[in-house]
Amino acid sequence: MSCVDLNCDLGEGFGAYTMGMDEAVIPHVTSVNVACGWHAGDPLIMDNTVALAKKYGVAVGAHPGFPDLLGFGRRPMTVTPEEAGAYVKYQLGALMAFAGGQGMELQHVKPHGALYNMAAKDEALAIGICKAIASVDKGLIFMGLAGSVMLKAAEQCGLTAASEVFADRAYNDDGSLVNRRVPGAVIHDPQVAMERAVKMARDGKVISINGKEINIRADSICVHGDNEQAIALVQNIRKALEAAGIEVRSLK
Amino acid sequence: MSCVDLNCDLGEGFGAYTMGMDEAVIPHVTSVNVACGWHAGDPLIMDNTVALAKKYGVAVGAHPGFPDLLGFGRRPMTVTPEEAGAYVKYQLGALMAFAGGQGMELQHVKPHGALYNMAAKDEALAIGICKAIASVDKGLIFMGLAGSVMLKAAEQCGLTAASEVFADRAYNDDGSLVNRRVPGAVIHDPQVAMERAVKMARDGKVISINGKEINIRADSICVHGDNEQAIALVQNIRKALEAAGIEVRSLK
Amino acid sequence: MSCVDLNCDLGEGFGAYTMGMDEAVIPHVTSVNVACGWHAGDPLIMDNTVALAKKYGVAVGAHPGFPDLLGFGRRPMTVTPEEAGAYVKYQLGALMAFAGGQGMELQHVKPHGALYNMAAKDEALAIGICKAIASVDKGLIFMGLAGSVMLKAAEQCGLTAASEVFADRAYNDDGSLVNRRVPGAVIHDPQVAMERAVKMARDGKVISINGKEINIRADSICVHGDNEQAIALVQNIRKALEAAGIEVRSLK
Amino acid sequence: MSCVDLNCDLGEGFGAYTMGMDEAVIPHVTSVNVACGWHAGDPLIMDNTVALAKKYGVAVGAHPGFPDLLGFGRRPMTVTPEEAGAYVKYQLGALMAFAGGQGMELQHVKPHGALYNMAAKDEALAIGICKAIASVDKGLIFMGLAGSVMLKAAEQCGLTAASEVFADRAYNDDGSLVNRRVPGAVIHDPQVAMERAVKMARDGKVISINGKEINIRADSICVHGDNEQAIALVQNIRKALEAAGIEVRSLK
Repeated sequence: MSCVDLNCDLGEGFGAYTMGMDEAVIPHVTSVNVACGWHAGDPLIMDNTVALAKKYGVAVGAHPGFPDLLGFGRRPMTVTPEEAGAYVKYQLGALMAFAGGQGMELQHVKPHGALYNMAAKDEALAIGICKAIASVDKGLIFMGLAGSVMLKAAEQCGLTAASEVFADRAYNDDGSLVNRRVPGAVIHDPQVAMERAVKMARDGKVISINGKEINIRADSICVHGDNEQAIALVQNIRKALEAAGIEVRSLK
Repeated sequence: MSCVDLNCDLGEGFGAYTMGMDEAVIPHVTSVNVACGWHAGDPLIMDNTVALAKKYGVAVGAHPGFPDLLGFGRRPMTVTPEEAGAYVKYQLGALMAFAGGQGMELQHVKPHGALYNMAAKDEALAIGICKAIASVDKGLIFMGLAGSVMLKAAEQCGLTAASEVFADRAYNDDGSLVNRRVPGAVIHDPQVAMERAVKMARDGKVISINGKEINIRADSICVHGDNEQAIALVQNIRKALEAAGIEVRSLK
Repeated sequence: MSCVDLNCDLGEGFGAYTMGMDEAVIPHVTSVNVACGWHAGDPLIMDNTVALAKKYGVAVGAHPGFPDLLGFGRRPMTVTPEEAGAYVKYQLGALMAFAGGQGMELQHVKPHGALYNMAAKDEALAIGICKAIASVDKGLIFMGLAGSVMLKAAEQCGLTAASEVFADRAYNDDGSLVNRRVPGAVIHDPQVAMERAVKMARDGKVISINGKEINIRADSICVHGDNEQAIALVQNIRKALEAAGIEVRSLK
Repeated sequence: MSCVDLNCDLGEGFGAYTMGMDEAVIPHVTSVNVACGWHAGDPLIMDNTVALAKKYGVAVGAHPGFPDLLGFGRRPMTVTPEEAGAYVKYQLGALMAFAGGQGMELQHVKPHGALYNMAAKDEALAIGICKAIASVDKGLIFMGLAGSVMLKAAEQCGLTAASEVFADRAYNDDGSLVNRRVPGAVIHDPQVAMERAVKMARDGKVISINGKEINIRADSICVHGDNEQAIALVQNIRKALEAAGIEVRSLK
C-alpha cells in the first residue's frame, strides 16, 4: 500500500501576534514544521507547539528561516552556505531543546520561505544546510522540493530526503514549480487539488501545466492552516487520499 | 587537594562586531560561558567559540541572556519564570547543536548579566530557569552566585549547582556582593584579588567589606578577558592558585 | 462648552502580522497614537496608518515604546532617562518623516505600555522623555496619565501636557489607577464606563474604588479597537459624550 | 577653483559594540554619513555622532541600510521599491530628530552597503528611495555612485544628486566599479590613491583598469576611518587635494 505524509507549517505567531489556526489544522496532518524564532515563532510558542503536536500524535520538524521577522522570511537574502548552515543549526538546536524537554524527538527539518526556495535552486546552499543538519543528527530527515537539488544535497550529506509536493501548485514539464506570477500557477479548485494529491501520492505522477504527465516523488504533501477554507481543503485531501487506499502517515 | 574552576565569558561579538580577547584568555581558563545570540553572539561566532574551546581543551557552557542586544543583556527586564525558562532553553538548545556538531557536550549553564543578577535574588525566577535546563538535560551544571537562591533552585530541580565567586569584588557580611555603587565594591589591586582567590578556593573563606571572615563556597572563579590587563590578572590568579597547591580544573 | 479628545492606539501590526481593527475604530476617535516600529509597527504600516488618519481627519501622535517586540513593549526594562529620551526621539523622528511625507504634522506623543507606566511613576524618566521631545518640537503635546508626574515633567520641559483618563479602569483615592490584579480594577459594564467617561469629561470628577468623588482632569479618554465589542463601546462612549453636550475633538 | 567633498561613514557602533575611529577621522572630512540603527548605530550613538559633527563643523547625512544588523547591511535582500523607500524614510526621520534636537539640518542621504550597491544598478529601487526622501525634504542631497542610475533617479525625483567616487577602487571603461573579486579592483598604494583622487576632483577623469582615460564626476570622495592606516590615507588625500588647489568642502 502506498503512503504519504501531510505536512503543515505551525507556530508562526510571535509574542503578542498570532497567525494561523494551529489547533484546527493539526488533527488532520501527520507532520508539522515548527517556526524557530527567526522569521516567526518564539520560545513560548515553540514549546506550546511541540506540546500540541505531542497531544495530537503528529511528528515534529524544525522550520528554520532567514533572520527577517519583518519580511516573514520570505525575502531572498544573500548568505553563504556556511552562514545558512549555522543559521539552520541554531534554530534546529533551539527546537530540539523544546522537543527534548517534552520527551519528543524531531523527525525532520524543512527550510522556510526564501531559504527553501533558494536552496531548491542553489546546490551549494543546500549542501551548506544539509551538512549542518547532519552534524547535529544524521537521523533527521531533510524535507525539500520534489525534483530539486535539495534532495540530492541531503543524500550527499548522509541524510534521508523527503520529497515534498504541493496539491495546489502547477508544475512545469521538468518537474519544477510554475512561477506564481504565471497564470494558472496556483490551483484554486479544491476538487482538482484533491485529485492531483491522490495522483501524486498513489502514482508518482502529475499533469504539468502543458498537459504532459510527468514523474514526481511525493513523500509529503504540503497543506495550509491559514483559514477555514484551507482547513476544509486539508480535510478533503486527507479523505480523498484515504478513499484511494493511500495510508496517510508521518515520515518515520 | 582542593580544586577550583576558572570561568570566563566568551564569544560576545555579533556579526561585524568584535568584543573581548577570546584567543588570549582561553589558554588560562578551564571553563567558558558562550553567548547564545540574544544579548551577544551569533551562530557563526558560537560555532567558532566552541571550536576554540575544543582546541584548548576547556569545558563549554551556555551563557544565555535577555533579548536585549542593544543593552548587552545588562538591563533588568520583567519576565515571568516561565518566559525566563523558555528563553534559556532556546539559547541552550542552540548552543548544544553547535557543541554536538563538534562532538562536544556542554558542561554547564550560567545566566548572563541582568538575568543572572535577577535570578540571584528571585527564587521563582531561578526555579523557572533551572526547571527548563533540567528538562533538557539533568547532567548540566547550573552555575550561580555563591550563597544565592540560584544554587538552591538548581538542587531543587535536580541539577548540580556550581557556586561562583569573584576575585575582584567585595562581599557583605551575609555573603552577598557589595553593590558596585558602594566605594570599595570593586577590588583594583591585582595582588589583593589573587590572595582573595586563593583564600576562597583553598579555605572557603573571604574577608567581608566590614573585615569579618565569612564562609563562601568557591567552585568556580569568574575572570575576564576584556583587555591586556585583565588577561595578565587571569594568568596571575591561576599561578597563585597553583602555587598554593590548588588544582585548577573544569567542573566535571 | 466642555470638550474632550478620544484617543486610540493604531498601527500595531508588524510585517506579516496584523493587530487591531484600525479601520473600524478610527471613524469614532479624534486622535490616534501610532506605533513606531519598536514594540510594534513597521515603516509601511506607519505610512499606511498616517494615511488612514489623514483620510478620516483625525490627529496623529507618536506612540513610542521599549525595544521589545517580543514583549509588545509591555515589560518594564531598566533604562536611564537619557536612553529613554533617545529611544523616544528616534521613534518620534521616524514617524515625523511619514507624517511630513503626507503633509501632516504630529499633534502629540504618548509613550506606550511599560514605558508609559514607568514614566507615570518616575519623574526623572518622564523628564528624560519630555526633554527629548521638546528638543525636537516644543509644539508637540505630551499625553500622560492623569495626575501623574508625566504631566508635571511635560510642563517643566516647555511642552503642553494632555491628561489622559480611562473609562474602563478604577481609580484609587489619590487619582492613581487601581492595579489590574485588584478585583474591580477593570470596569466591564459598558454603561458604567460610559457614565464615568461623561462625568470625567464634563465635571472633572470620578468616583474612586472606595466610593469617594475625586478630581481628575480629562483632556483625552483612551479607547480600544481590539475587537467588535471594544468598537461598540467606543461608539457608545462617543454618543454619550455628545448627548451630554461635550464636544469630542482632538487636542489642537 | 574646483572643489570636492570628503565623506566618511560614522556612528557604526551598536550598544556595547564600537566600530571605527570616529574622533580620529572626523577632523579630516567635510561630510559624514551617520548609521541610523538598522545595519548599525543606535539612538545614543546617533545623538553623539551628530554632536561630534557639530563640534567639528562637518555636514551630516543619513546612512540608511537594510534591516540586517547581523550582516551589517552588506547582504543583498530582495525588497520592493516601496519597502526600500519606507525603510529609508524611517531611518532618515529618526536621524533628523537628533539633528534637529541639536539645531542642525541634514545635508544628504547616502544608502549603505547592499542597499547602495543594489540601488546603483536598479533604477526602480533608486527611484523608490529618492521619492521617499523627496517627500520628506526636497532640499536633501542624494549621494550615489558616480555614473549610476542613482543620480538620474535623484534628479527625476527633484533631488540634487551628488556623484560619489572612490580613490582606492579601480573603474571599468564604462565608469562602473571593478568587482572586488577581480585582481586590481582595490588600489593599495596610497600614492596612487592620492593621485587618482586629485585627477578625479580636478579634471573629472580617471584611468580605467584597461588604461583608458574616462570621464567621472567627483562631487564627493569616499574615505574610511577604520584604522590608523586609513586615517593616514585620508589626511594624505586631503593634503594632496589642497596642494593641487582644490577646495575641500561639504556639498552645501
